Amino acid sequence: MLKFELLKTDGPTSARLGRLTLPHGTVNTPCFMPVGTQGTVKTLTPADVAEAGAEIIVCNTYHLYLRPGHNRVKSAGGLARFIGWNRPILTDSGGFQVYSLAALTRVTDEGAEFQSHIDGSRHVFTPELVIEIQQALGSDIAMCLDECPPYPVGRDLAESALARTTLWAGRCKAAVLPETNLFGIIQGATYPDLRRRSALELLALDLPGYAIGGLCLGEPSDVTYDLVAELTALLPANRPRYLMGAGYPEDIIAAAERGVDMFDCVLPTRNGRTGTAFTTAGRVVIKNAKHADDMSPLDEACDCYTCRTFSRAYLRHLFIAGEALGPRLLTLHNVSFFQRLVAGIRQSLAEGRFRQWSATFLDGYGSAAEPAENPVVNVTQT
Amino acid sequence: MLKFELLKTDGPTSARLGRLTLPHGTVNTPCFMPVGTQGTVKTLTPADVAEAGAEIIVCNTYHLYLRPGHNRVKSAGGLARFIGWNRPILTDSGGFQVYSLAALTRVTDEGAEFQSHIDGSRHVFTPELVIEIQQALGSDIAMCLDECPPYPVGRDLAESALARTTLWAGRCKAAVLPETNLFGIIQGATYPDLRRRSALELLALDLPGYAIGGLCLGEPSDVTYDLVAELTALLPANRPRYLMGAGYPEDIIAAAERGVDMFDCVLPTRNGRTGTAFTTAGRVVIKNAKHADDMSPLDEACDCYTCRTFSRAYLRHLFIAGEALGPRLLTLHNVSFFQRLVAGIRQSLAEGRFRQWSATFLDGYGSAAEPAENPVVNVTQT
Repeated sequence: MLKFELLKTDGPTSARLGRLTLPHGTVNTPCFMPVGTQGTVKTLTPADVAEAGAEIIVCNTYHLYLRPGHNRVKSAGGLARFIGWNRPILTDSGGFQVYSLAALTRVTDEGAEFQSHIDGSRHVFTPELVIEIQQALGSDIAMCLDECPPYPVGRDLAESALARTTLWAGRCKAAVLPETNLFGIIQGATYPDLRRRSALELLALDLPGYAIGGLCLGEPSDVTYDLVAELTALLPANRPRYLMGAGYPEDIIAAAERGVDMFDCVLPTRNGRTGTAFTTAGRVVIKNAKHADDMSPLDEACDCYTCRTFSRAYLRHLFIAGEALGPRLLTLHNVSFFQRLVAGIRQSLAEGRFRQWSATFLDGYGSAAEPAENPVVNVTQT
Repeated sequence: MLKFELLKTDGPTSARLGRLTLPHGTVNTPCFMPVGTQGTVKTLTPADVAEAGAEIIVCNTYHLYLRPGHNRVKSAGGLARFIGWNRPILTDSGGFQVYSLAALTRVTDEGAEFQSHIDGSRHVFTPELVIEIQQALGSDIAMCLDECPPYPVGRDLAESALARTTLWAGRCKAAVLPETNLFGIIQGATYPDLRRRSALELLALDLPGYAIGGLCLGEPSDVTYDLVAELTALLPANRPRYLMGAGYPEDIIAAAERGVDMFDCVLPTRNGRTGTAFTTAGRVVIKNAKHADDMSPLDEACDCYTCRTFSRAYLRHLFIAGEALGPRLLTLHNVSFFQRLVAGIRQSLAEGRFRQWSATFLDGYGSAAEPAENPVVNVTQT
């Protein structure tokens, strides 16, 4: 069902311009997928997300399985219809959440046994079940169940997680319907040889797309970038590549430069909710006192509803006063910002000036960044 | 600055169709003013509120004085500009909040001394100060500082609060700029003779509009309705009348029938946030299990974005999962519902069939109301 067209490969870099056709629509790549864990990009309507420019979102198998239940969603006509987003949806397999959110009771080659973070009820995720769930949801792209070790992790654990991920990928492939677009997830932590092994084992399954999991967990950037470059060199040019969890603008640009087509991260939504905006001139912590009388918009270069309508002074007031409109408006801006970022990558690729564009972008982005009151971290995905 | 045109008086009832022209625009009456206490109708953008059909909102002097501060709002070009709502705003004087929210330390004829509910800081609201604040905010309609006793209250306290309200109204009138539209607030609790006295004393000040305060605080409906009827009979036909805090659809209809032109209440927004929707067929408690698989909209008769786009099953999921989109979507619907309600009153008045329309509306509204999980109360305005 998936069709991936490689429209252009950059000369000076490995960046690619592409178009991904999925059951619910077309996605221009490189793309950034806002995260709608529980079937909603937090605080936003589907109309907002579309207006921000997103063409695909990520929802979560673990969360939707627990609540409202995949069979309920199936009866409602599938996830896209249930949530009012009549466009492509990628569902993460829930492996990451089982390891990070649930109380994990036992992992064997058979599957992962866990207790729900909501009510403590016991469940087992097997490769077959996560495929069944994602097919019930009607996902445009389903992800294999993987074992994602934390960072840092020793070589032995990384190796056994890799082996299990390969085993489970084979079972996912055996269980999946032919019309479901199943992506494999490359593991292997920060060990280059394990990463290569994982990639080659998954390539043998001939899947319609490949994701790089288990990165962007706090390891140094150059480690991430080098591994990404090594892996994209191994992956077939005619399949989309997805770097899971990369959310800093500089990381997205660096990974796109190394041939990644798809990104997702909770950063724009989570930081928006908690008062940090991404702008052309860097991050802005809206509660800072310096914005109290600032009648300028969050980002002069942005044409989102938030920037067209409100001043920093008002946005700060909303956050100080604890008003729900504040998180909503900053989330809307951040989601728009990340869409403009990938649109900028795509346009500069089309025009053959990606390197120049990214240099200019990064220059401006670093020019006026405010220190965040709290460190901005990206390790917990909900 | 205020112009009130009485377009039509109903034959069979005392209901009135009117048009109120204010510095920031025109308001068709009877109108319902959504409450935007801190300069935002909770969870909604100004665009949402306008799309729902509202032509005027209510903001709060007490809250905006404390945060962000009226002088900051004045520097920003006034409240309408600061909050991105370029339409009329009525500001409540803050008297109600001083009594209900703040720690009230002392009330004398001079003013009300209180401690902020935010940081405990000490302040004194005098009639002159609340006028100064409302003028700094640039309110289209400013309210007199009043003393609003709780329900029930003894006659002596009601009488002294009334006397002080009259005294303060005189000082407000003396302090106000000629271009500010100052409304008086009739007090007197549930004592008909005190209510009449209060009205006559305020009428002597010849103000551009009159509000009925201190009702809808839990007293029986027939007490409210009888007092409203008595008071509207006393008030001049060519001045707008505002019943403060009336929010139940049945109360709005009953009061409009008795000649009230303006309404405000936190019910649509507060109930929306907490999961109760107002629909053509009565109240719906969205978390109730019966909605878990209900793919129909909240209200078949409603054309708001929520009802056009989402099922009850999805709205329930949002509330069960604690997602911010749930309160937003139910608030949007409720605000739209109350605008359709007053639009229905206006249209039926224009067509000379108000009685029939209201009978049909109330008939449908009572037909399928669900018991709320928690009693819906209306005594605390924030």
